[in-house]
Amino acid sequence: MNSRLKFYGWGIEGTGLDEAERTRMLRFVADRLGVEPHLATPPQIADIQLRSPRIKAPGAIAHVFRDDPYERLLHTYGKSYPETVRAFERDFANAPDLVAIPSSEAEVSAVLDWASSANVAVVPFGCGSSVVGGVEPAVGDRYAGVVSLDLRQLDRVLEVDETSRAARIQAGIRGPAIEAALKPHGFAIRHYPQSFEFSTLGGWIATRSGGHFATLYTHIDDFVESIRTVTPAGVMESRRLPGSGAGPSPDRMIIGSEGALGVITEAWMRLQGRPRFRGGAAFGFPDLFAAAKAVRAVGQAGLYPSNLRVIDNEEAGIYGVNDYGESLLILGFESADHPVEPWMARAIELIQDHRGRRHPDENAALRWRTAFIRMPYARELTVPLGVINGTFETAVTWDRFEGFHTLVRTATVEALKEATGHSGTVSTRFTHVYPDGPAPYYTFNVRGTPGQLLDQWRHIKTRASDALLAAGGTITHHHAVGRDHMPWYREQRPALFAKALEAAKGVLDPARILNPGVLVP
Amino acid sequence: MNSRLKFYGWGIEGTGLDEAERTRMLRFVADRLGVEPHLATPPQIADIQLRSPRIKAPGAIAHVFRDDPYERLLHTYGKSYPETVRAFERDFANAPDLVAIPSSEAEVSAVLDWASSANVAVVPFGCGSSVVGGVEPAVGDRYAGVVSLDLRQLDRVLEVDETSRAARIQAGIRGPAIEAALKPHGFAIRHYPQSFEFSTLGGWIATRSGGHFATLYTHIDDFVESIRTVTPAGVMESRRLPGSGAGPSPDRMIIGSEGALGVITEAWMRLQGRPRFRGGAAFGFPDLFAAAKAVRAVGQAGLYPSNLRVIDNEEAGIYGVNDYGESLLILGFESADHPVEPWMARAIELIQDHRGRRHPDENAALRWRTAFIRMPYARELTVPLGVINGTFETAVTWDRFEGFHTLVRTATVEALKEATGHSGTVSTRFTHVYPDGPAPYYTFNVRGTPGQLLDQWRHIKTRASDALLAAGGTITHHHAVGRDHMPWYREQRPALFAKALEAAKGVLDPARILNPGVLVP
Repeated sequence: MNSRLKFYGWGIEGTGLDEAERTRMLRFVADRLGVEPHLATPPQIADIQLRSPRIKAPGAIAHVFRDDPYERLLHTYGKSYPETVRAFERDFANAPDLVAIPSSEAEVSAVLDWASSANVAVVPFGCGSSVVGGVEPAVGDRYAGVVSLDLRQLDRVLEVDETSRAARIQAGIRGPAIEAALKPHGFAIRHYPQSFEFSTLGGWIATRSGGHFATLYTHIDDFVESIRTVTPAGVMESRRLPGSGAGPSPDRMIIGSEGALGVITEAWMRLQGRPRFRGGAAFGFPDLFAAAKAVRAVGQAGLYPSNLRVIDNEEAGIYGVNDYGESLLILGFESADHPVEPWMARAIELIQDHRGRRHPDENAALRWRTAFIRMPYARELTVPLGVINGTFETAVTWDRFEGFHTLVRTATVEALKEATGHSGTVSTRFTHVYPDGPAPYYTFNVRGTPGQLLDQWRHIKTRASDALLAAGGTITHHHAVGRDHMPWYREQRPALFAKALEAAKGVLDPARILNPGVLVP
Repeated sequence: MNSRLKFYGWGIEGTGLDEAERTRMLRFVADRLGVEPHLATPPQIADIQLRSPRIKAPGAIAHVFRDDPYERLLHTYGKSYPETVRAFERDFANAPDLVAIPSSEAEVSAVLDWASSANVAVVPFGCGSSVVGGVEPAVGDRYAGVVSLDLRQLDRVLEVDETSRAARIQAGIRGPAIEAALKPHGFAIRHYPQSFEFSTLGGWIATRSGGHFATLYTHIDDFVESIRTVTPAGVMESRRLPGSGAGPSPDRMIIGSEGALGVITEAWMRLQGRPRFRGGAAFGFPDLFAAAKAVRAVGQAGLYPSNLRVIDNEEAGIYGVNDYGESLLILGFESADHPVEPWMARAIELIQDHRGRRHPDENAALRWRTAFIRMPYARELTVPLGVINGTFETAVTWDRFEGFHTLVRTATVEALKEATGHSGTVSTRFTHVYPDGPAPYYTFNVRGTPGQLLDQWRHIKTRASDALLAAGGTITHHHAVGRDHMPWYREQRPALFAKALEAAKGVLDPARILNPGVLVP
């Protein structure tokens, strides 16, 4: 059985949507987007002409490097829409010259030392689930070459401290392997991004990944107890502490650094007990704004539900978890310690005070979840059909939310038409909720024009991003900045902070070889 | 009625311990430390010979500056033990040349511009409650002079966003004034450090202040929605967002920066509803370790009590809230939204599973709280008696806690004897609790030798700090680094992080005038 990752799409070679999922998706693109379905052959290795590597692996660590076409193709792209389009166009012009697959931290250091001295750019790579151009070796012309640095061999849980509920974990391990290693101890990180199966601990930390918990522990940030990072200037390791007030947090400089400051090699992570008690319910609302009011009430009540998500009328329809008549609010509590009924009861009371209609189908949430997890597989079906599809996520304070949403949604709807001449779908959900505001997540689909898909996508992305910045949101809540979001990140971040971060990079990565084009300058 | 702050001690001139408190304190030092009580006269302005200011306020903003003796004396010291000793010794050698009291952000900028060009050091000052030498203008000889920059005129709540539960607040406002301004809106920050009455929002943020909540929202950090900071290089303002994943957090660079990177002028702060429901209970345990096991169980249960503090046998005795027979665990829940009985019930169950004995005196917690709040007033009584007294706080993971505590406590007990020849008291409490470890807080008292108090204190401080660093703790959990903790902070922080922070300072404060000697280099 082949267990290689696809180099052009989601997951393992030979896997994908099942027959029923494919049928549903094709019906959606036909009915809603007016696209005539047909099946396309995905790119094959033999289809693609790769340029010869411009650099040669240094002798002493030659065994760390690979230059075979599969590895170079696999490390060319993440999983964003434009990357998938280019993959299907057989355009791998930015393939890395070499792929480094170190089996130890010493080898990571050796690669960075060599790269720093040889003017070779290095792009850290976890499992390639970036949807923002974070791992594409598009580093410009000022380097002798570019290496993709794959952490997949640093894949172990090294220590479990059951007393403190923490574990020392290597950065290249994927979600399910963490889960399996912690299970015998009765623990889990309980961080489940959509990419869980094909993303890594180091990637989660480097991108401030958003996970399972809709409230409180929304990002990976708070689960990090300490981090070990290899930089071109040496190893940086923070002290394992439950909390500290000793100066600005060293970890918070690395969390979200997207490979531009160093290569995270391991971290002590805070663990959760495995849930023994759960409660859940779904509620219908006439529209997103009505649901949002209930979400705000629950989010400000200090109840900390694990799930508090909203799926708007359109999105609920697309996922087949509701008819188009209403928005769905999904509520959930979980605990490893105590029954959650009192928490549930109060949250339900608040939701019903805001006229939430208890949804008759208790499995709506589960069906949505399953459909959600399977979504990344759909792209290899829809891209060859000329469907343009993308998602973007943000966060905004409650006082601005309604105006924000109206502006962003309208801009996106208009942009679809402007770009393609066709009307498409724009749907919204809340993935995370804070006391001071929601994190809305937008999905768009439209029939595009084969051959012009990238330009059309870029127009839509630009209009949507401009709107959300202008309306007071963040350019990303948990997908990270990557290369795609740099224009808006430049606008959003305080200018002086950019300079300070640039100066920090000068210390940690003096030859500026690490993931050039991302975050700094 | 005089409402000036004392320049040599805690609070307002003319206030202090009442008769009963004074009697109890004098009995304690007599009985436990063998010190013969007598009352001393605190320093008077007329006692003190201040050197003439070495610098002159620049003409255009001369009105911002003060050089009268009271202001210079007030801005010489924080409230640490060694500072109080020096104040009582009438040693104000490090008094600032001038005190700047800007009434606008533009004036803050003007002061920094002038200081940068004139090689004048600037020490930001909130209300002077530092206990770690954070505000003393001890900046060495390489400056033409030194200015203490007092933010007290930036003292307003500027906006309240009731929908998002957030407020824009100026940095120089003190705790009670924030409380008063938010109360009509039904909100509070609910951050109550011991210094609450005489400390400021900007100081809390700059020092990662620890507050009211024993779990979850332990530091001010998570209440910060965005920050506006004036640096010598310009104004840096982060975007108001409930959450973000766009690169490393700009706010987390400023939170804990202790005036070394810029002057915080205002912040959007997340607010809490005012509690309508409360529950509380106290429990006795044979010793600290037994209580700690119960605390760990509650801290890992996902219940998030607002209070979960332990006072060890010795400390309970000193505060008069228990006899010496046991350690006290104080549990509390509060909510603005819902009755807390189910939360209380489960926490009590966990505590009783760990053999906590329900304490008959329900007011023990309140009595401890009152005594705790009044403690800072005691120093002006005990310093002239030659009592050496100090506190230090830390955090450590649970797996190390017992060994850590034994080592630190033993080192401190020994150090008291080594330094003074006398035995003293060393007591412990937990101020905050995390799922992965407690934040222990140590208090020591010993009879010292007048004339040698500073050296004796320094010996104790050094031995205790060495021990807690060696045993895996943090040099500070919520008192900040200041000048006192620099040797251990240098050891604790990752060396490369220090260099990165130094580089960031080079950008924000190129003339390196801001709070020299603190954090960087």
